[in-house]
Amino acid sequence: MHNEHRFLIDCGEGTQRQILKSGIGFKRLNRILITHGHLDHILGLAGLLSTLMRWEAMEDLEVLAGAWALERIDDLLNGVVLRGKPSPIPLRLTPIRPGMIFDDGDFSVTAFPVYHRGPDCFGFAFQEHTRRPFLTEKAEALDIPPGPWRKLLVDGHPAELPDGRTIQPDQVLGEPRPGTRLIHIGDVGRTDGLAEICSDADALVIEATYLEAEAEMARDFAHMTAAGAAHLAETAGVRHLLLTHLSRRYRERDVYSEARSVFPETHVARDFDHFRVRRGECVRIED
Amino acid sequence: MHNEHRFLIDCGEGTQRQILKSGIGFKRLNRILITHGHLDHILGLAGLLSTLMRWEAMEDLEVLAGAWALERIDDLLNGVVLRGKPSPIPLRLTPIRPGMIFDDGDFSVTAFPVYHRGPDCFGFAFQEHTRRPFLTEKAEALDIPPGPWRKLLVDGHPAELPDGRTIQPDQVLGEPRPGTRLIHIGDVGRTDGLAEICSDADALVIEATYLEAEAEMARDFAHMTAAGAAHLAETAGVRHLLLTHLSRRYRERDVYSEARSVFPETHVARDFDHFRVRRGECVRIED
Repeated sequence: MHNEHRFLIDCGEGTQRQILKSGIGFKRLNRILITHGHLDHILGLAGLLSTLMRWEAMEDLEVLAGAWALERIDDLLNGVVLRGKPSPIPLRLTPIRPGMIFDDGDFSVTAFPVYHRGPDCFGFAFQEHTRRPFLTEKAEALDIPPGPWRKLLVDGHPAELPDGRTIQPDQVLGEPRPGTRLIHIGDVGRTDGLAEICSDADALVIEATYLEAEAEMARDFAHMTAAGAAHLAETAGVRHLLLTHLSRRYRERDVYSEARSVFPETHVARDFDHFRVRRGECVRIED
Repeated sequence: MHNEHRFLIDCGEGTQRQILKSGIGFKRLNRILITHGHLDHILGLAGLLSTLMRWEAMEDLEVLAGAWALERIDDLLNGVVLRGKPSPIPLRLTPIRPGMIFDDGDFSVTAFPVYHRGPDCFGFAFQEHTRRPFLTEKAEALDIPPGPWRKLLVDGHPAELPDGRTIQPDQVLGEPRPGTRLIHIGDVGRTDGLAEICSDADALVIEATYLEAEAEMARDFAHMTAAGAAHLAETAGVRHLLLTHLSRRYRERDVYSEARSVFPETHVARDFDHFRVRRGECVRIED
């Protein structure tokens, strides 16, 4: 969630049930980003669309995915759910290519390619734009009256005041403050090239299906180990690491132990966990 | 479950997760009966097939459904899951027509049409064959030696003993004992014609989506009310009634109250409930 925007990343079987159980509701949850087209990441779209159609609670639904995944999603939603009939709520299936996929002026989402089995797998960078804070005390010292001038200056434009003076943004804006940066990587088998993308992130969410004891299996199935994810976090200099997609045959504490020996600021995300990520901060919220 | 046979009836989204959670396992759970093709009764087949394919724990999988449902299931399994490739485990999609759909000599399953929205909706009758018990004391009095003769007699054939005597089945078999009869009806909007099918059932499992206060909505969507289900049970003279598919907007106790005022031997089935049904008996098993 960011401001009024909500993103659902991947939609495995049972997602709608988990959303109901979590109490977060479906409102405005109309933008779904898909990391890749494997079934455990897309099957929940069918039930979700079916429910949203019935309740008519949602104005529209957009699913963004790589080309291969999108074909499969098309078969699932248009083929199985709608059976060729028009959707009662506007349904947009939007192909993802590397680059910006969302920008509201305040923050953006960028897709970048990752390596996993099959084509068109993506990670996502959520980036608040860099901002220069408006320094109220300087504005007051310059005697800038309330009105549209402050907004102009905050947006980086010079402002001509009613008394004829022109104020430059530099006169009232502080040092640039980088926005919060959150990286989400789904299933992934190799980390080369990712450190640069992850650099300076406040939080990196990434899968850790395996432990090092089964590194070979991780390689065979193009998945990550807890240590592999931790090494990426360490190399990239991210601030916090959030591990997901654990195989159910491990104990959580073993995953913690392996990852934290490399990168101490590691959390393992459980179902229904809620984290708040800000600049330099990543905390688990107790609801 | 009956002897070595297991049947899964319908497979909504999340069924594989519930099976895992229940601890009953996937072993021999390879015969799935579908009451009708609405999405909340079939979507779980995709994840289930996908998992079974990966684990290779199952020798084959058979899905039995009406023609309309089967088309949709074909789109889901062959279209979305397999994408036209051959299944790694033999997958049979078997069309159901009214009549016997399974018989192992000891018990049978019969499909019968029910009325719901859309074509080809079915209920299922699980019927143990009538048996005549072998009366050991009579066999001993007749001095029948151990050997294949007892099996012949149990199966209703005369047996010629080594000493030359021929024993007729009537000499050692008791009165016929009807087998257990269990009726399962999924989504259903009308009960006409069903009382005869349900008659003498030890247990009737049937949906009760609504309460009488919303009988009109029940009619509009071709669903049953708790009272409607109870009246069917009462008219048919079944011994126990098990209600499923409750709308989440009701309190369970209100469903009990409405149904039991008509038919006292009513249970409301919850997720993971386990019932044992025998001749004249239907008990909830505490695991």
